[in-house]
Amino acid sequence: MDYLAAGIDPEKTTICIQSQLPEIAELTMYYMNLVTVARLKRNPTVKSEIQQKGFGESLPAGFFNYPVSQAADITAFMGQVVPVGEDQKPMIEQTNEVVRKFNSIYGETLVECEAIIPKVGRLCGIDGSSKMSKSLGNGINISDDYETLKKKVFSMYTDPDHIRVEDPGKVEGNVVFTYLDAFGKDKEKIKEMKDHYKKGGLGDMVTKRYLLEVLDEMLTPIREKRKYYEDNKDEVLKILEEGTKRARVVTAETLDKVKDAMGINYFK
Amino acid sequence: MDYLAAGIDPEKTTICIQSQLPEIAELTMYYMNLVTVARLKRNPTVKSEIQQKGFGESLPAGFFNYPVSQAADITAFMGQVVPVGEDQKPMIEQTNEVVRKFNSIYGETLVECEAIIPKVGRLCGIDGSSKMSKSLGNGINISDDYETLKKKVFSMYTDPDHIRVEDPGKVEGNVVFTYLDAFGKDKEKIKEMKDHYKKGGLGDMVTKRYLLEVLDEMLTPIREKRKYYEDNKDEVLKILEEGTKRARVVTAETLDKVKDAMGINYFK
Repeated sequence: MDYLAAGIDPEKTTICIQSQLPEIAELTMYYMNLVTVARLKRNPTVKSEIQQKGFGESLPAGFFNYPVSQAADITAFMGQVVPVGEDQKPMIEQTNEVVRKFNSIYGETLVECEAIIPKVGRLCGIDGSSKMSKSLGNGINISDDYETLKKKVFSMYTDPDHIRVEDPGKVEGNVVFTYLDAFGKDKEKIKEMKDHYKKGGLGDMVTKRYLLEVLDEMLTPIREKRKYYEDNKDEVLKILEEGTKRARVVTAETLDKVKDAMGINYFK
Repeated sequence: MDYLAAGIDPEKTTICIQSQLPEIAELTMYYMNLVTVARLKRNPTVKSEIQQKGFGESLPAGFFNYPVSQAADITAFMGQVVPVGEDQKPMIEQTNEVVRKFNSIYGETLVECEAIIPKVGRLCGIDGSSKMSKSLGNGINISDDYETLKKKVFSMYTDPDHIRVEDPGKVEGNVVFTYLDAFGKDKEKIKEMKDHYKKGGLGDMVTKRYLLEVLDEMLTPIREKRKYYEDNKDEVLKILEEGTKRARVVTAETLDKVKDAMGINYFK
């Protein structure tokens, strides 16, 4: 519903459910033989997410192996460009290692891919921590209503040393300005506010109210569109079902090529 | 071909190819979330096989995870009894842990299984090492011809202190007697030979020639039957294809139940 509300057009973009594409599971199983346990341990994204989630000794094998599963997600579609956040770059690297290893053993079959990182490579959480994340609960959701949005914006991390309005404030690391840079359209006004804030005399409530206005303007039509899909879940399910059906044609074709290359299409 | 030659009847027993049963890959992916990395590290079978194969730092993730894949192999068929060698008991235990974990999270779906261990729980290699194994190259294969069989029996590990024929010899750990116990039918004759050997005066060539006779008698009809299938590989492939088709009905049913329990049969 977020995808659709944000404007992703299912006619142009195939939206599918990973678990309904069995070929991805099969590819993962094959790729797991091409990746060492030691290499998975060194994957920086996995490392930091393990720490973030506090798995410790109870780290599930499925989580540990998910870079391999992600390599299957990408290669199942012979993906060449992958839109990701900055923190996912090691995943793309790991995928390309799998591709090269597979091709070197079984002959040219899979294609390498490239990360496409947007201008804002990674949006920090409202608490200023490195990443906005659903599991950390420090994100603004497309589904948040106005009151929730307001509460989140008003609780944003700014400059802890900016105590009185007249004090000079810091703009770097100030989440309100980070978000204004990412989403504000009136770049001139934002520049002026930054100068004012740095000099002193601009209160956090003023910058926050402005950000709230900017975000709400952006989110209102998205929120309305989301509401439509919430009320018409059958339509969403149909989009997913059709997308998954379309996707499966591609994933089945890839798996077939992979099994041909491996010489295990015994009954073909 | 070994299965068929040894007398497994494909009308009674379904022989299938694991890699042609995609449901097993899917089940493995789901079960991997129910097993921790720490638990896999503690699996005794995996531990000793890692050592045996000398993987070291280059241990593939696929190998490390294979107890999970084995749990899928068994549960895909709702297997309740599993004929295995003694050394595979920890695998059965790990499978049952997966079953219990799955059922406790998603409700009663899978069934526990029990290991069926034959009288000879584990046959040692011809070198006397703990396990007869294809990868260690210390086994007697059903496909071995008479000359190969002879060479293997004659090179068997006996009692290194039994130097002259008149020396008393040890029967325990003497591979020739281990194999005679496993395959010889004339138990009385074997008992007499053992007594004679222990007392001294029975040469290794005599015991080896007798074992060769015993094994060759057992293997000749099997070898002939195997020869038939070697010359009629189409028939073998057809048996496998039909077996796999029959197996898939069962594995698909299990996966469906599993996905129902997990609540991820979205398009059903």
